[in-house]
Amino acid sequence: MGKASIIVFSGDLDKALAALTVATGAAASGMDVTMFFTFWGLNVIKKGGAWKGEGFMGKMFNLMARGGDAIGPSRLNMLGMGRWLMKRMMKKKNVKLPQEMIADARELGVTFLACEMSMRVMGVRKEDLIPVDDVVGVATYVQEASKADIALFI
Amino acid sequence: MGKASIIVFSGDLDKALAALTVATGAAASGMDVTMFFTFWGLNVIKKGGAWKGEGFMGKMFNLMARGGDAIGPSRLNMLGMGRWLMKRMMKKKNVKLPQEMIADARELGVTFLACEMSMRVMGVRKEDLIPVDDVVGVATYVQEASKADIALFI
Amino acid sequence: MGKASIIVFSGDLDKALAALTVATGAAASGMDVTMFFTFWGLNVIKKGGAWKGEGFMGKMFNLMARGGDAIGPSRLNMLGMGRWLMKRMMKKKNVKLPQEMIADARELGVTFLACEMSMRVMGVRKEDLIPVDDVVGVATYVQEASKADIALFI
Repeated sequence: MGKASIIVFSGDLDKALAALTVATGAAASGMDVTMFFTFWGLNVIKKGGAWKGEGFMGKMFNLMARGGDAIGPSRLNMLGMGRWLMKRMMKKKNVKLPQEMIADARELGVTFLACEMSMRVMGVRKEDLIPVDDVVGVATYVQEASKADIALFI
Repeated sequence: MGKASIIVFSGDLDKALAALTVATGAAASGMDVTMFFTFWGLNVIKKGGAWKGEGFMGKMFNLMARGGDAIGPSRLNMLGMGRWLMKRMMKKKNVKLPQEMIADARELGVTFLACEMSMRVMGVRKEDLIPVDDVVGVATYVQEASKADIALFI
Repeated sequence: MGKASIIVFSGDLDKALAALTVATGAAASGMDVTMFFTFWGLNVIKKGGAWKGEGFMGKMFNLMARGGDAIGPSRLNMLGMGRWLMKRMMKKKNVKLPQEMIADARELGVTFLACEMSMRVMGVRKEDLIPVDDVVGVATYVQEASKADIALFI
């Protein structure tokens, strides 16, 4: 049922969740999905650290808090919404944690590729990452993406 | 003449304007266009508030102001440009306000879809939004986007 | 071997480098590549200034520094990585500078288009930019992108 190719450039939690939501949704619809983790996006697939369960709520809080003064006008009125969001999430816990979504993605057969150049430049070794399917260069990305029905940069 | 599918993830004014510009441009060219408003992008289609006419200039100003110290090196030299931009816009007023662009998009037949999961998580109700064509899940997005000639994540 | 169409909306150094990497990679693979520079992305193709060689390292440093306190939780643990990155880059210098990547892109035949509306609104004149192939409107973008095998918004 087609192919999807997603560059995960951002290491921001909200964008990573969006990328994983599209990836798992596409895979669940029977698509052949590839995620390319590059630049800050390498953080998403780093072992431990940024993606630990407990840390998630703290991060979510920070994400919302910065909506109030650092991020800019368009999110100013998200502050109230953000606190509400966090409370709801903590209460209901029906939103999946990033590492749960990553596990879902892997189970659904989503291919995880790490960007070789980013890793080299940033000093990230393969053993710093959760298991990925391959470490590749931009040529591999181009080849995959040119055959994709959905190609996104997130 | 083909289909376009745009995820509006960002609630930032500049990105929302870019998304609406592509959407109306594509619709004016005869394309079948769908916009999926998700996460912060829900702000773009909230009633009143963030998108009121008078508030726009203030927001534009804040947007530019933050270019000076909060946003980072690449936009530092946009500060002067930003003030110039705002002045020009206030004088000429030949740039459409977001709600005008939204009205244009609706008139041109652009489909507005709101993300069900984002709404639930963020506590946004359908009555908080301007009229949309539907509230949908990721499966609907995937189905639409896989048939699109242009699929963007903004 | 197909077409690629990339909107460069962001003026952030990291995103500009990512856009240029995909563009040159696609062109090197034989694809017909078009980059549309719009909004903050116009900064990427401005003469001098933001893209001078010496300034690059300073900018890279700022980019990393802001990872520590301004950018948000997902990049907090990039601070150490960032300094490491910069040092490696300064020592090895095997990562291309933006203007080198732009030169590569031009040599590989990547088409550079500047957004007419953004230029008008922001008061940017054609002579402020490095030589581009054309200054175009959204209709041209839509026409190009609808034929593209890879269409990204960066």
